[in-house]
Amino acid sequence: MAKKKATKKAAKKASKKVKSVTGSSTERRRKPKLDILDIKTLQLIEKTALQVRKKIDTRILPELKFPVRALSNVKYDKKVGYFELGKGRKVRALSVNTVKNFAQTLRLMSISKDMVENDDFATKREAYYVSKNWGDCKFKDQPESDSVMDDIEALASLDGLSREQLRFYPEEHGGSVAGNLVVVDRDPETGEKIEIDCTGFGTGSYSIPHSVEHLKFKTDAKFVIVIETGGMFQRLNNHKFWRHGNCILVEMGGVPTRATRRFVRLLSDQLKIPVYAFVDCDPYGIANIYRTLKVGSGNAAHINRFFCVPKAQYLGVTPQDIIDFKLEDATHPLQPVDIKRAKDALKNDPFFKSHKPWVKAITDMLKMGVRAEQQALAKWGLNFVIDEYLPHKLKNKKSFLP
Amino acid sequence: MAKKKATKKAAKKASKKVKSVTGSSTERRRKPKLDILDIKTLQLIEKTALQVRKKIDTRILPELKFPVRALSNVKYDKKVGYFELGKGRKVRALSVNTVKNFAQTLRLMSISKDMVENDDFATKREAYYVSKNWGDCKFKDQPESDSVMDDIEALASLDGLSREQLRFYPEEHGGSVAGNLVVVDRDPETGEKIEIDCTGFGTGSYSIPHSVEHLKFKTDAKFVIVIETGGMFQRLNNHKFWRHGNCILVEMGGVPTRATRRFVRLLSDQLKIPVYAFVDCDPYGIANIYRTLKVGSGNAAHINRFFCVPKAQYLGVTPQDIIDFKLEDATHPLQPVDIKRAKDALKNDPFFKSHKPWVKAITDMLKMGVRAEQQALAKWGLNFVIDEYLPHKLKNKKSFLP
Repeated sequence: MAKKKATKKAAKKASKKVKSVTGSSTERRRKPKLDILDIKTLQLIEKTALQVRKKIDTRILPELKFPVRALSNVKYDKKVGYFELGKGRKVRALSVNTVKNFAQTLRLMSISKDMVENDDFATKREAYYVSKNWGDCKFKDQPESDSVMDDIEALASLDGLSREQLRFYPEEHGGSVAGNLVVVDRDPETGEKIEIDCTGFGTGSYSIPHSVEHLKFKTDAKFVIVIETGGMFQRLNNHKFWRHGNCILVEMGGVPTRATRRFVRLLSDQLKIPVYAFVDCDPYGIANIYRTLKVGSGNAAHINRFFCVPKAQYLGVTPQDIIDFKLEDATHPLQPVDIKRAKDALKNDPFFKSHKPWVKAITDMLKMGVRAEQQALAKWGLNFVIDEYLPHKLKNKKSFLP
Repeated sequence: MAKKKATKKAAKKASKKVKSVTGSSTERRRKPKLDILDIKTLQLIEKTALQVRKKIDTRILPELKFPVRALSNVKYDKKVGYFELGKGRKVRALSVNTVKNFAQTLRLMSISKDMVENDDFATKREAYYVSKNWGDCKFKDQPESDSVMDDIEALASLDGLSREQLRFYPEEHGGSVAGNLVVVDRDPETGEKIEIDCTGFGTGSYSIPHSVEHLKFKTDAKFVIVIETGGMFQRLNNHKFWRHGNCILVEMGGVPTRATRRFVRLLSDQLKIPVYAFVDCDPYGIANIYRTLKVGSGNAAHINRFFCVPKAQYLGVTPQDIIDFKLEDATHPLQPVDIKRAKDALKNDPFFKSHKPWVKAITDMLKMGVRAEQQALAKWGLNFVIDEYLPHKLKNKKSFLP
């Protein structure tokens, strides 16, 4: 009985508290220091809200303008280095049909404001659930809230602001780090500076947080290697390849998450050291993992400017490596899906099309008809990759693909 | 041209070196100290090899005996706390038909011996590639090598040895940790002791390594919370729930990996503090994630003894929580696949069948016809889970499901 009462009290307390979404646990935290990007974010939200308000006050139907998010609204310039958002805009005017979506957009922006001011955050999923208290304009399902969020994100991207800056964090983080790197973070409660030494994790590693915008770095490392598979990362980390090679190892675990891409981008920007990608020699490793890391993707052009790593280079595994390191009998035949992906890359992908060495490499792969995983090097012994392959490749940086 | 020569030299060097799979990078590492489990592992391998050899020397066809790996060879006893392997054995006698598989089994065991002696390891994928140098008895594909490895693993499990002890590591690690915990690891190169303070990662966290067998722990934490989603882990970590609650947070990221399960098991064994599971209230969270964590799974009974956490308890989200915390309008209807999974659990799963509170909870869920995610608590504000839900649940531990 006592339990029931307490539960009711908790639920009651909750329902009283819906004015501020961030709740009381933020209250005991430090008053957050707003940085320049935070102030820009608040200005964007306030400006947007004021424009709407002004129209309403003068009895004109307000409208919101968003960039069109589609491959058709993308351009690629080698010098810029990533797929850029074009000038296409869609206008959402307030009407009977759009009123719900209109209200949802403003409400989500208002939550964003609340979170920036209180240094809190929400996953896309949480943002969807928060709407359950919005009465008639609550989201029916998450695709509905995601789409509204994507519009806001595209809008903010025009001002150089990412979704993380709006405090909507991705659900997944992923990405492990080991090597000659000190990550400078802060205690999210006290604001105190924290230094995380990535040489100090033994057989384990540092797990990249969901939002990395505030991180700073200290290192004397000479380069970063981003690695496709957990198995290969583990081998290089357990054998302390980073100690002998004076480098930083980052595990992508397949196509890198937003947080991992942004983390590597910040490393590249702040440290000005090269980033080498070490992935499988197959159309997925090349056209999905590496291409996404380096220039971004077509259907999310509004975020590429934050997440791509234009200075990344492709260390391997290359089709030429299959020949040079005699890996032929450790390869697998290309499947129809691989062949389709490779041909697509040659025909439709502005990135590969503008780099001749890539056109040659992908054409070679199609001719050879095989793919090779990075772990195929184990054919010559488990540590051939450490003792021979990587030192050899790193001595011939000109052989890296762009 | 110079490049080509160097490459040839590297490949040549490699092909000379196939006698020891672990290669020269292990040579510069410390001479590994074998612990009691390592010695047991070597003894098992040598004993098996000697038996085969003895039979051959006396011109009798040798045979290998492995436990049957199937649900039909499993038993569940509440007191033991996990699905145990039964007494069923399959015998593989050497014949024209089995000779390849026979040789592969012995070769894989020989690699295992090499790795134990040199403190190295191989992923399942690497082990498959290493065979590319075995001539006629190389594996055709990875399912072939996996199956042989599973047999060896089942055999070793009878001696209390896990696959990690044989030095075959899983490809994936996963699992992040934050909170009042110091992990005692060692430098894999120098053997030096390393202490990793899991309070010191700011907004990031400690990433569990692929093999955790050698880890020790220091803590004064009162309990461990294992969390299904990255989003919820991030919320509790960013708001330093572990500081105020004096606990350890572990992110599972869906069904926990072997390394994550073993890590939590070691925490539970060494620290003797309770483990509370915080997952979605749906048949997947309950019957897959929680059940696997607590008692293991049917088709891998030979490993449950190492990977299950029999002392885990289910904190929530429970069907009763949906009512108590008024989450009804933040739920989703059960899909046919959910209903099937829940009915299966009630009808066929020895774990749920032996615990009445679970039978009631799952029956309630089926009656209500809905599921609720842990992030649904955000309906009452993003930090309702920290300010109200968890404190309330932790005050009523008797409401936890077994």
